[in-house]
Amino acid sequence: MELSVFFAGTGGSVPTQRRGLPAILIRRGGERILVDCGEGTQRQLLRSVGLTEIDEIFLTHLHADHWLGLPGMLKTFDLRARELPLRIHGPRGTAELVDGLLRFAGRTTYELRIEELDGGELLERDGYDVLPVRVSHRGPALGYVFDELDRPGVFDPRAAVAAGLTPGPEFGRVQRGETVRGVTPEQVMGPVRSGRKLTISGDTRPCDALCEAAYRSDLLIHEATFAIEEAQRADQTGHSTAAQAAGIARDAEVSLLALNHFSIRYPVRVLREEARAVFANTVLPRDFDTIELPFAERGEPRLVRWEDQQPPAAEAEF
Amino acid sequence: MELSVFFAGTGGSVPTQRRGLPAILIRRGGERILVDCGEGTQRQLLRSVGLTEIDEIFLTHLHADHWLGLPGMLKTFDLRARELPLRIHGPRGTAELVDGLLRFAGRTTYELRIEELDGGELLERDGYDVLPVRVSHRGPALGYVFDELDRPGVFDPRAAVAAGLTPGPEFGRVQRGETVRGVTPEQVMGPVRSGRKLTISGDTRPCDALCEAAYRSDLLIHEATFAIEEAQRADQTGHSTAAQAAGIARDAEVSLLALNHFSIRYPVRVLREEARAVFANTVLPRDFDTIELPFAERGEPRLVRWEDQQPPAAEAEF
Repeated sequence: MELSVFFAGTGGSVPTQRRGLPAILIRRGGERILVDCGEGTQRQLLRSVGLTEIDEIFLTHLHADHWLGLPGMLKTFDLRARELPLRIHGPRGTAELVDGLLRFAGRTTYELRIEELDGGELLERDGYDVLPVRVSHRGPALGYVFDELDRPGVFDPRAAVAAGLTPGPEFGRVQRGETVRGVTPEQVMGPVRSGRKLTISGDTRPCDALCEAAYRSDLLIHEATFAIEEAQRADQTGHSTAAQAAGIARDAEVSLLALNHFSIRYPVRVLREEARAVFANTVLPRDFDTIELPFAERGEPRLVRWEDQQPPAAEAEF
Repeated sequence: MELSVFFAGTGGSVPTQRRGLPAILIRRGGERILVDCGEGTQRQLLRSVGLTEIDEIFLTHLHADHWLGLPGMLKTFDLRARELPLRIHGPRGTAELVDGLLRFAGRTTYELRIEELDGGELLERDGYDVLPVRVSHRGPALGYVFDELDRPGVFDPRAAVAAGLTPGPEFGRVQRGETVRGVTPEQVMGPVRSGRKLTISGDTRPCDALCEAAYRSDLLIHEATFAIEEAQRADQTGHSTAAQAAGIARDAEVSLLALNHFSIRYPVRVLREEARAVFANTVLPRDFDTIELPFAERGEPRLVRWEDQQPPAAEAEF
């Protein structure tokens, strides 16, 4: 099953000519999960991979640059006659926020299911869990860990026959975990293969709880608002430097670190250099870049630049 | 003094790959006036002419597609340490809306001066008036007429000398409207020259009050949400067809009609053809196009496509 992360907006606080406000689209099989929804997110998607239906939305926190795109997107789904309920998760205050916004923007006819999280609640989904982690920003803020369930090891039919099983229903039963005529699954299956793990920090100071939760993630997406020279300001405003983000990646032993939420103060190469000095396998996605997360046996997570992806067919208009 | 209209977003209700949500930037000398502020307006400006300080904002009505870009833009001005107060005008409900939005998005440190309008109040500015006109949409909605004051006629120094005046202070006094030694300004000045007039409909059904207020505008920007085949739906939803907008332009004897706020249902050429059958001098701006409005003696209003304008210097980032 394909798993990838699409960077719909990689800026922070204010948009720039090149970077939209925070929004990350997780694509797993046919599922579409949005993490944060800065102003303009619906149009960022329209201009790139298309604005498909979103199955679930996770807000990291309630600062305006992370949700101002929500009411417009919810209204667009409504104009398209969406019928499926939409789940929206976020820290305490999310329900009041969404309710307040829609009082002005107008209600949706489809149902919104708002769930407020404190961090620590394990949300079980089909084939993966979502773990919200309380992080350290100004006001309630969450990181999220998306953690696929382990997959059974690879079945070895020759070993099964050698152990005395007959091809057919017996093979199926042992693969599903049953001991069949004394033959245990362990005898005929390879080692359990772990699922993929993706951690998103949201806005935060360097945070031990997040570092722990991110342990051995295939991909950590961590904010890097400031450069080292403004470490004090980062702390005061509840943000991280690129080097601090890289320190979390190193300590959590992740495979790949992707930085986002850059201040407009510096050229991003400054942040890239500072981060790579601490953790070499660091990338700084631009808007519309994708990170593909293959299963471990099929390769490493890798950044694919937007210009290397198939451009969508131009919209016929004139 | 230069006067032009920049189309920051020409779509309606929902954005498309090519068209952002409604926003029109009026540039008069150094003044910047924004009419409506759909989601993503600040980024549309960043991607084109730059997000300069805005002097005044006029909202046509309070449907979300016309104001969702407002809180983000107000916050960005705040992060830039704006100090000048910002005037925001709109129909009844504007104060409650802005207050409600900033309760969630955070207050600005600079002052917001909200003025609610019913239509009919003449707002006097330096060199022009703004007249809000109550139009016919769903709920309170306004069109706006921007009407420059007349300029004095051209002074004729030879006629002044022939009439017996002496070059110097006497010339100045007669040009400022004084009768000097029996010589009246009319004797030595050409006919009064009219200023430029710009009318913006906002969202509306065909509206007599707007047609009357738009009389002899240099430019009428009128919404054209639907094609003729959906005239009934246009009426039900409080919108106009392109042909109806063209009928207003014809009856108001405007120089140029620019259509905007298109539904995504049709290719825009359908709307263009239907409008031009009624009023030939009709244009359909795309995002980032400009209409220049020279003084009458210097030429007609004209559409300048974005690709024919000087592109801004690329933002250095990588």
